[in-house]
Amino acid sequence: MAGYVSNDARRDETVGMKKIVTKFGGSSLADSGQFRKVKEILERDPARRYVVPSAPGRRFSGDDKVTDLLYRCHAEREAGGNWQDVFDRVAARYMDIAEELGLKADLQGELDVISRRIEDGADRDYCASRGEYLNGILLADFLGWRFMDAAKVIFFDGAGNLDSEKTNVVMMALLADGVPTVVPGFYGIMPDGRVHTFSRGGSDITGAIVARAVRADTYENWTDVSGFLMADPRIVRDPREISAITYAELRELSYMGASVLHEDAMFPVHKVGIPTVIRNTNKPDHPGTLISLSLPVEPTMPTITGIAGRKGFSVVAIEKAMMNAELGFGRKVLQVFEEAGISFEHMPSGIDSISVVVAGDALAPHREEIVRRIADLTHPDVLTIHDNMSIIATVGRGMVSNCGTAARLLSAMGRAGVNVRMIDQGSSELSIIVGVDDADFEETIKAIYSEFVG
Amino acid sequence: MAGYVSNDARRDETVGMKKIVTKFGGSSLADSGQFRKVKEILERDPARRYVVPSAPGRRFSGDDKVTDLLYRCHAEREAGGNWQDVFDRVAARYMDIAEELGLKADLQGELDVISRRIEDGADRDYCASRGEYLNGILLADFLGWRFMDAAKVIFFDGAGNLDSEKTNVVMMALLADGVPTVVPGFYGIMPDGRVHTFSRGGSDITGAIVARAVRADTYENWTDVSGFLMADPRIVRDPREISAITYAELRELSYMGASVLHEDAMFPVHKVGIPTVIRNTNKPDHPGTLISLSLPVEPTMPTITGIAGRKGFSVVAIEKAMMNAELGFGRKVLQVFEEAGISFEHMPSGIDSISVVVAGDALAPHREEIVRRIADLTHPDVLTIHDNMSIIATVGRGMVSNCGTAARLLSAMGRAGVNVRMIDQGSSELSIIVGVDDADFEETIKAIYSEFVG
Repeated sequence: MAGYVSNDARRDETVGMKKIVTKFGGSSLADSGQFRKVKEILERDPARRYVVPSAPGRRFSGDDKVTDLLYRCHAEREAGGNWQDVFDRVAARYMDIAEELGLKADLQGELDVISRRIEDGADRDYCASRGEYLNGILLADFLGWRFMDAAKVIFFDGAGNLDSEKTNVVMMALLADGVPTVVPGFYGIMPDGRVHTFSRGGSDITGAIVARAVRADTYENWTDVSGFLMADPRIVRDPREISAITYAELRELSYMGASVLHEDAMFPVHKVGIPTVIRNTNKPDHPGTLISLSLPVEPTMPTITGIAGRKGFSVVAIEKAMMNAELGFGRKVLQVFEEAGISFEHMPSGIDSISVVVAGDALAPHREEIVRRIADLTHPDVLTIHDNMSIIATVGRGMVSNCGTAARLLSAMGRAGVNVRMIDQGSSELSIIVGVDDADFEETIKAIYSEFVG
Repeated sequence: MAGYVSNDARRDETVGMKKIVTKFGGSSLADSGQFRKVKEILERDPARRYVVPSAPGRRFSGDDKVTDLLYRCHAEREAGGNWQDVFDRVAARYMDIAEELGLKADLQGELDVISRRIEDGADRDYCASRGEYLNGILLADFLGWRFMDAAKVIFFDGAGNLDSEKTNVVMMALLADGVPTVVPGFYGIMPDGRVHTFSRGGSDITGAIVARAVRADTYENWTDVSGFLMADPRIVRDPREISAITYAELRELSYMGASVLHEDAMFPVHKVGIPTVIRNTNKPDHPGTLISLSLPVEPTMPTITGIAGRKGFSVVAIEKAMMNAELGFGRKVLQVFEEAGISFEHMPSGIDSISVVVAGDALAPHREEIVRRIADLTHPDVLTIHDNMSIIATVGRGMVSNCGTAARLLSAMGRAGVNVRMIDQGSSELSIIVGVDDADFEETIKAIYSEFVG
């Protein structure tokens, strides 16, 4: 490993220089005005030498995203409909940008090629990928940077899974010269030469792959929000942005329903320990949210990092005197759910009771079967199902050092008149999980937010 | 069932009269002075018409219990040693009582029979059972009540398990006449005619069986304490007695280490819903602790009923990103413990983590095997074992209606500087279970007691 690194270092002319990979979302590159903002952001810091653009997004509420238009082109072509009109709208988006910025790239030539291939029956992934491809060409032209087609550096296997090692080796080699480069997001190439895309939102993944390949100091993910919010703004009024969060915390919040980065996007950079920053193209002075593998727990930071939750869980509660003495009791109960294909979320237990918490809609079709199987296998004294429970996770690495957190949280809920139906805190202490009635969901999140954040 | 009850009612001359079954422990019948207290207690309430005595216990610290002496007789006889000297001490205990109370029973004749049977190699259970047998004869004489040998009314099957139905039918028939009766505790008879005993402390069970057979209104269990304490008096100074507790609460406290009734003793009476009262022979005016199937939750009662806990648990903590998406993850983990014959106590879970709490001494011999099997089956990211955790259960039916209980409990712990390692509260809400370092065990119990009781 040591030898590998030093070989690589000899090849890499950029060793020692600070490197930032930037990814810009669709709204950040929706028109020429946004292109100008992006350029300004890149020029502010010379370390920003790698850009991964998305396709142009919405310019205004009700506008179409270019990717949606391209999917529509493909669908119309497949159906034998008039795809050209839709394609003209795509072309117009790029023409406007190119004209307004006075670009010299042969946009018409590129559009002609794409148009011909759609006419010839190009597949869905190819069509969709052209949004990022064209935007990359225009952005490279505008910045005066090198354009590197993702089809040359991002490789999928025959099953459509990223060939992570090949991609890393090739990209590392080609970007090692330190030349500022634009790599369009969202797509790569299959072994048979066909273009293949990540799932929707996959430009995040491209950015993470580039960050890993160039061993970036930071991966900046520029969007139209100033970072992650501590709570859902539909529930809490003007929630604060999270200034710094660990990948593990983020994963907990995102699992519990906070809408954050594309899930797969965190893993390539997470793996190699590169910090990610979520920033706002429209407010470039806002520091955004830093996401890192580990972060110091500072005394000045808020005790909690964020709150998220989901509604609609069901609790299957099983009571049986002396169950603790029955070897295999818990395993049998979980097996019943497993056989029905239902994942369980939590399994809090008392002395003579065990509760299995599962998603209500996963339980619904198997309700009778589950009740019957548990009765057969475990002969419980009482078996009840309680529906409509919400699970709320309060996440924060700062909670470890603060032994009063659970007490404050529950006190706040008590003052709000919310009844705690479940509490679950394991030894990780990264989060405290409470169960409440669905009707108390919003009230609970408000109460916790107001207790810890104000 | 209705027909059965009415048949039975015709046979039972005591229908409509209040019936109390009393069981007196060994210290309550240790000498003639205690016999006098017992008689006085029985005479206070004419409903007390059934007595189940234990063998004479210790009269003073360092004294021997008669049952221990009888076991020693048997062991000496088996070893060919001098068992007569020990038997003489047994005989003297009963002679003293008989003399001091001026009893007319043929004690010497009974002692001679027993002595001859020991000489002839009588088995261990027979020898041990004579303690209750003789005490029953003397007590019946002293009270002027009927003596009913337990070997005539309590039946075991060939495997030594109580034949509950036969016992109930026979005892119900023989006691239906309402004559005040003494039934010695602790033993019964096997199908082959040999005497068989319950496990140590089994007179509690005899008392419960009698209570069930006569359909007692109350089963009074007279001991040398004024009921159950809310907490361990070695930890909390002068803890209050519990005035009323449900069987379910009692079971939780007893499971968590509170030393209470013989565990099997609760079930016969529990089953038929007869309330039990624990009372103090030496303080007959103290109301003791009422144990009942269900009890009202009164606004004036303390929020909690009791606190108990045990030390020395180990936590096997498993972390793995995306584990919730893996069907069967929890079941596999529990299966590993089951295969090693280890019962788990709790399984709190976070988003990407699951902890299995087991008794430390059960885990110790299987430590490496468990780690290896979990690693093989579930491929975790991190697997750690934390030892020396205590589990403390705070039990109280009053907690259901009081949504601030968990908050108060955790606040009290926080003020005491105790770090919460685990919280587990399922939907039963009869108890809140917390995990703390063994070093914080006593401090935690004190803090919780002082918060809720004062």
